[in-house]
Amino acid sequence: MALIVHKYGGTSMGSTERIRNVARRVAKWHKAGHQMVVVPSAMSGETNRLLALAKEVAPEKPGKAYGRELDMLASTGEQASSALLAIALQAEGLDAVSYAGWQVPIKTNDAYTKARIESIDDARVRADLDAGKVVIITGFQGIDDGGNITTLGRGGSDTSAVAVAAALKANECLIYTDVDGVYTTDPRVVPEARRLERVSFEEMLEMASMGSKVLQIRSVEFAGKYKVPLRVLSSFTPWDIDLNEEATSGTLITFEEDADMERAVVSGIAFNRDEAKVSVLGVPDKPGIAYQILGAVAEANIEVDVIIQNLSKDGKTDFSFTVHRNDFQKTVDLLKGKVVPALGAADVVGDSRICKVSIVGIGMRSHVGVASRMFKCLSDEGINIQMISTSEIKTSVVIDEKYMELAVRALHREFDLDQTADTIAR
Amino acid sequence: MALIVHKYGGTSMGSTERIRNVARRVAKWHKAGHQMVVVPSAMSGETNRLLALAKEVAPEKPGKAYGRELDMLASTGEQASSALLAIALQAEGLDAVSYAGWQVPIKTNDAYTKARIESIDDARVRADLDAGKVVIITGFQGIDDGGNITTLGRGGSDTSAVAVAAALKANECLIYTDVDGVYTTDPRVVPEARRLERVSFEEMLEMASMGSKVLQIRSVEFAGKYKVPLRVLSSFTPWDIDLNEEATSGTLITFEEDADMERAVVSGIAFNRDEAKVSVLGVPDKPGIAYQILGAVAEANIEVDVIIQNLSKDGKTDFSFTVHRNDFQKTVDLLKGKVVPALGAADVVGDSRICKVSIVGIGMRSHVGVASRMFKCLSDEGINIQMISTSEIKTSVVIDEKYMELAVRALHREFDLDQTADTIAR
Repeated sequence: MALIVHKYGGTSMGSTERIRNVARRVAKWHKAGHQMVVVPSAMSGETNRLLALAKEVAPEKPGKAYGRELDMLASTGEQASSALLAIALQAEGLDAVSYAGWQVPIKTNDAYTKARIESIDDARVRADLDAGKVVIITGFQGIDDGGNITTLGRGGSDTSAVAVAAALKANECLIYTDVDGVYTTDPRVVPEARRLERVSFEEMLEMASMGSKVLQIRSVEFAGKYKVPLRVLSSFTPWDIDLNEEATSGTLITFEEDADMERAVVSGIAFNRDEAKVSVLGVPDKPGIAYQILGAVAEANIEVDVIIQNLSKDGKTDFSFTVHRNDFQKTVDLLKGKVVPALGAADVVGDSRICKVSIVGIGMRSHVGVASRMFKCLSDEGINIQMISTSEIKTSVVIDEKYMELAVRALHREFDLDQTADTIAR
Repeated sequence: MALIVHKYGGTSMGSTERIRNVARRVAKWHKAGHQMVVVPSAMSGETNRLLALAKEVAPEKPGKAYGRELDMLASTGEQASSALLAIALQAEGLDAVSYAGWQVPIKTNDAYTKARIESIDDARVRADLDAGKVVIITGFQGIDDGGNITTLGRGGSDTSAVAVAAALKANECLIYTDVDGVYTTDPRVVPEARRLERVSFEEMLEMASMGSKVLQIRSVEFAGKYKVPLRVLSSFTPWDIDLNEEATSGTLITFEEDADMERAVVSGIAFNRDEAKVSVLGVPDKPGIAYQILGAVAEANIEVDVIIQNLSKDGKTDFSFTVHRNDFQKTVDLLKGKVVPALGAADVVGDSRICKVSIVGIGMRSHVGVASRMFKCLSDEGINIQMISTSEIKTSVVIDEKYMELAVRALHREFDLDQTADTIAR
């Protein structure tokens, strides 16, 4: 007997028929002898519907107290879907009870619409589990010290599920979603992309931060911090498939670096075109220029990703970095307005037609020459590299966005990730 | 400066545009210097939508724990509408905060789907009011001792509003609805029906129990118990009408029996066709027959309204009573199966094509002959009276349902309730 947490996304809860299938699946696990906790999202479309109503009653954002009321509003979506799932489980003959975040309670800070979980009291839930009940806990929400409802931000239900699993010391947290696992790269770009049976927590973190949308990055961070074994799997397999088959499907995000995992140098290729490049040209090369440029950007609440500073020539240097595309124009205006004159720099130029492509793999730690193999591969395809950024288990390059698909496909082949490459053990 | 509670029904909250109008109306009252508490219902249709989803996931009612989950589900409707109203008030420039029943808290017993309010803690609300905030409190719901959400049953938001007004010792509780007050009778039956400017609490109670749907009867009982001045008025007047005009519109349900109120003998005519008549014929006239018949009915959880026992003849009597039409067949079957053989009665006959018509008026206390004036009026119209029931301030008759409209119109005229009767002061 194990304690298992299931999390179901909005699509999996998208209709009453789907909710009944979720109930049948959970009942199957319960009947196999497991203690079951289920964390559902709101029915798909519900959160958007509620937030659209808020926009209709207040077209302009009406100040500070607005966030608290948005959370009161949006949290009703998960409360309703959780109650419906409890009813569906009761219809399957199980004893089931649903709790809103505040009833557990899941304590958070008071950063409305993007709160962070601070603690979870497991007493009530554990008593129910010991009494043989299936416990349903609303995703996405909690309660602050003032007794106000908070929400965790978009995709927060993943984080709720992992946090609940951590608090209960669950044996595994299964994230049911509309894809059947984590892939070596996006199958829409590379048809040969393979599902990974296992991926390390650190690789998953890099892939999630790089735009792989399978899991909310905060949930991966949480899983890492509390060592919660996570599995991503499809909620669209028939509910009555063999439990053992289901329990080993999808992708396991693991914390054990076993021998198998060492074999593959690169586990996946991540990419995104959400960024834009900004370059400050002809900056007098003095100490403190990075701070003068990036300090002003940070003060404007703009996040910076890749940063490079060219070699100095004649006492001048060029300084480049990437920001989210939504912040591109704001960044350029900010630099032109105040920073460039103060620095005595020559100009600011920008390019929003770039993309970032990354290879991610825990094997990079113990293999040399992986990055240069990546650069050679891109060079062979005639792709010019504009910026490079590296970490222990990832190498990212910024290139012209028109080469994105070409680069991803070439790298996928180069690192033997194609489905046909049967030399890869996993 | 007064402390005022506004309650808005589902139709008044039925769209985001209507919610904005509610916000503008509340803002007008707040700007006039009043402390404002608002109790909204769910947006019209929302509660039905949610309960229909529950029925889809569990076509059969799945046992005892079902009620708790239904309340978790249904309570989200008011939580959402309350948050939307808070946002709309913020958009009007006011400081507004919404509370779910559990946040106040409004404590109830644990009779899910039909809970009763036990206490209301006014500390949090009062602190907000003193800080100049408009406070919105979800109608229809509370929390039990176990920390579970409860709901008060259909129309429970009226009761929530009155209970909140009582707890805060509000100066007046205004129930905004889709009619503009309490009428002498249903204007769809008698076009000459007049709106009453004031009606006594006891008259309102009799009319509500008789099927006048303006207010939930429990809210009237609550208002009576705690002496909360209640006003029923329309939410469809333009929000920007003069506040003094608005504050005196509709119908005031009052606890003061002033001189004016003595003038009218009858205040209104109530009627319903929800009942059916059951007669047990040829019952041997011995002590205890009423208990033997009605005890069995009560044990089956069937409510009995009017009861008559005929004069005995040859040691036999007939015993008749009315039940809700939904319980009619069940009652007849029950009596035929066990009670009639045990009693040695001759037969059970029933008639579901009856109606009940009542005259209600606090003036009946001090006027004699009101009932006989009613009977004469009906006799003049050729209407046969089947049963009679009286109380201090009401006389009810059971008649053939085909005469219902005729009887109501005739009595409305007989007791000078028509709009043309300008001899009536109010």
